[in-house]
Amino acid sequence: MIKVYKFGGTSVGSVEKIQAIADRIMSEPNNQHVVVVSAMGHTTDQLVELCSKISTTPEPREYDALISTGENVSAALLSMAIIAKGGKAISLNGSQAGIYTSNGHKRAKIMDVRPDRIQLELNENKVVVVTGFQGVSEFNDVTTIGRGGSDTSAVVLAASLGLKECDIYTDVDGVYTTDPRCVSQAKKLSVVSYDEMLELASMGAQVLHPRAVECAKENGITLHVRSSFSSDEGTRIKELNSMELNRTVTGIALKRDEAKISVVGVADQPGIAGKLFGELGNHNVNIDMIIQSNEQENETNTITFTVSEDDYEDAKKITERVAKELGAGHVVGDTSIAKVSIVGVGMISKPGVAATMFKTLGECGVNIQLITTSEIKVSCAVESGQADVAVQALHDAFELHNAK
Amino acid sequence: MIKVYKFGGTSVGSVEKIQAIADRIMSEPNNQHVVVVSAMGHTTDQLVELCSKISTTPEPREYDALISTGENVSAALLSMAIIAKGGKAISLNGSQAGIYTSNGHKRAKIMDVRPDRIQLELNENKVVVVTGFQGVSEFNDVTTIGRGGSDTSAVVLAASLGLKECDIYTDVDGVYTTDPRCVSQAKKLSVVSYDEMLELASMGAQVLHPRAVECAKENGITLHVRSSFSSDEGTRIKELNSMELNRTVTGIALKRDEAKISVVGVADQPGIAGKLFGELGNHNVNIDMIIQSNEQENETNTITFTVSEDDYEDAKKITERVAKELGAGHVVGDTSIAKVSIVGVGMISKPGVAATMFKTLGECGVNIQLITTSEIKVSCAVESGQADVAVQALHDAFELHNAK
Repeated sequence: MIKVYKFGGTSVGSVEKIQAIADRIMSEPNNQHVVVVSAMGHTTDQLVELCSKISTTPEPREYDALISTGENVSAALLSMAIIAKGGKAISLNGSQAGIYTSNGHKRAKIMDVRPDRIQLELNENKVVVVTGFQGVSEFNDVTTIGRGGSDTSAVVLAASLGLKECDIYTDVDGVYTTDPRCVSQAKKLSVVSYDEMLELASMGAQVLHPRAVECAKENGITLHVRSSFSSDEGTRIKELNSMELNRTVTGIALKRDEAKISVVGVADQPGIAGKLFGELGNHNVNIDMIIQSNEQENETNTITFTVSEDDYEDAKKITERVAKELGAGHVVGDTSIAKVSIVGVGMISKPGVAATMFKTLGECGVNIQLITTSEIKVSCAVESGQADVAVQALHDAFELHNAK
Repeated sequence: MIKVYKFGGTSVGSVEKIQAIADRIMSEPNNQHVVVVSAMGHTTDQLVELCSKISTTPEPREYDALISTGENVSAALLSMAIIAKGGKAISLNGSQAGIYTSNGHKRAKIMDVRPDRIQLELNENKVVVVTGFQGVSEFNDVTTIGRGGSDTSAVVLAASLGLKECDIYTDVDGVYTTDPRCVSQAKKLSVVSYDEMLELASMGAQVLHPRAVECAKENGITLHVRSSFSSDEGTRIKELNSMELNRTVTGIALKRDEAKISVVGVADQPGIAGKLFGELGNHNVNIDMIIQSNEQENETNTITFTVSEDDYEDAKKITERVAKELGAGHVVGDTSIAKVSIVGVGMISKPGVAATMFKTLGECGVNIQLITTSEIKVSCAVESGQADVAVQALHDAFELHNAK
């Protein structure tokens, strides 16, 4: 049976860890192995630093040629380690592995995967070690595919080889009901749906990049997130029907680095929100939650929204400028905001989940500043200092210590 | 005009040096540039060390995949630096540059160079930065071409582009009459013949690898060895007719790390030298000088030869075993040997040069232990402690302080 899996940067962070991976692979001689690797530990960061000394806006093609060498090193070393232990192995770079991408460097899109060489080497009973994160353009140039690249590489290779599952080995042993550093009763989940994972990943649970999850969803590949350092089962991310699941809330996500901006005294007329968020969008500021409230007495509105803390200064300046142009009142900012979310496909068929959330937060004295909802998620912006209390209370309320 | 040149590891050893090279290239906007680069400073050594922690006998294909990344990094950085300064540039790896090699990894032979892509990029007015030391096999695998690789890469690229000259930028400013650290009056030579350079290179003047010189000779490419840190003319290595040259001795080479082994009391019968040197050859011991002397009184011979100090222990053991088998007397070793050589194509047409050498050494009290000669070289093994005196005396005797 062919197995495709990926080892991340910390998993290949030293010669000893690389040798441990080699041992692990060789303990399954009856399978055919395609192993996708990231660059060792901080290699990529070091290359980025070297690069930044030469240019703050490096030429993207050259940036890719530089940055991709980190994966070449780890792939060659793992292959060498397997051979040194008496196995058969070969390392393939993005081009050799047949990962064809668009010509857009730094965040190229994977256009096609032709695993002819991989298949050839597998037929020779070799472990095939593939460099993650990279591909080749139509001009035969090395490309990199951006954030979450190696996970995505593994998923597309699994799909191209006709597989239904792909293992992602990482430094955590699975996806938890919430961050175990925050709530000690947090439980590892055995299964999570793609959509749940997307909500959890984009809100701070950085086990898997959303892009890899999207890609797995599109291709119907089950992702198995598990620990590089143990053989325990991890968490499977797959298509789940909400009816099958006997759970309402799957997990609680926390994003700490949020900021809130309010424009007070906005005239109640059409086009104002469009003008404001259009300007912010033009400056690449990502808006998260938005709320508009009407003040009856003077017939003006207050528009409040959240952005990530990184974007706060930019966003505040742009908002102040637009507010002035629109003759709005004043702009108020607050950087001590956190976003707490409950996520679960089970919510779709069970009413009252949001109400339970609000009631729970109220009972423990947490003031809800903004609310947004989607089919499988309810998010509340709260004061940063209350975030941990909020997460703990919700974990208890939805009985996630009993999750599995 | 297209120019091909190579910058060695120390020349690209830091971001600052890479930027200096970029400035240098951009100061000649009217030429088309093909720049071959080695890996930065000690990068290759670091990769070799990483590799040695995994295997003492690394798989050659994987070794090449690993080691070649050093040149990818320096090529991308140089290209990036040129672009950051407002120029146009592109880095090409061995495959992209069209350097096709045999499948023999670690020391692949260059079979063909097809500079289509290089020509294409030159036509776009880009500086083309090519990774030295690497090529691609018929299986689309990265190969490395062994010691002296980057110099050889530059020479074959120059040949493939129809050029007659190739600049080798290095950390010395040319080829000297002898090592300037040894003789302060040593002079930089403006021209040296290929054959002289081969003799000088293989005997310790490590400016250029013999392989690159051979390759330049075969292709009729003039090599211009010069300093990365100045714009002075260096030394040109080219075909020279001995008749054209008004000089007898071009330079004096010194190799310090030699060792001598003598087998005393060898029966005067055929086949003995064959047996001894056959055995040494089987064990990859390179023999340098050989002398056989006959002792009249007891009708036995003494066979004396030199090896590099690295091979001494092995060579001595093998010689002792063979001597025993042949019933020879005893084996004597001496590791304090140096080899001093005078080199010059001018010797061919001028008799008495060797005699001048022997007389000079005699006059300053240097005892000659062994002698070998070729058409353009006379070498003497002397006691290590006398090597500097010998080189200085010969430099004076052949008036090399007047060389140019």
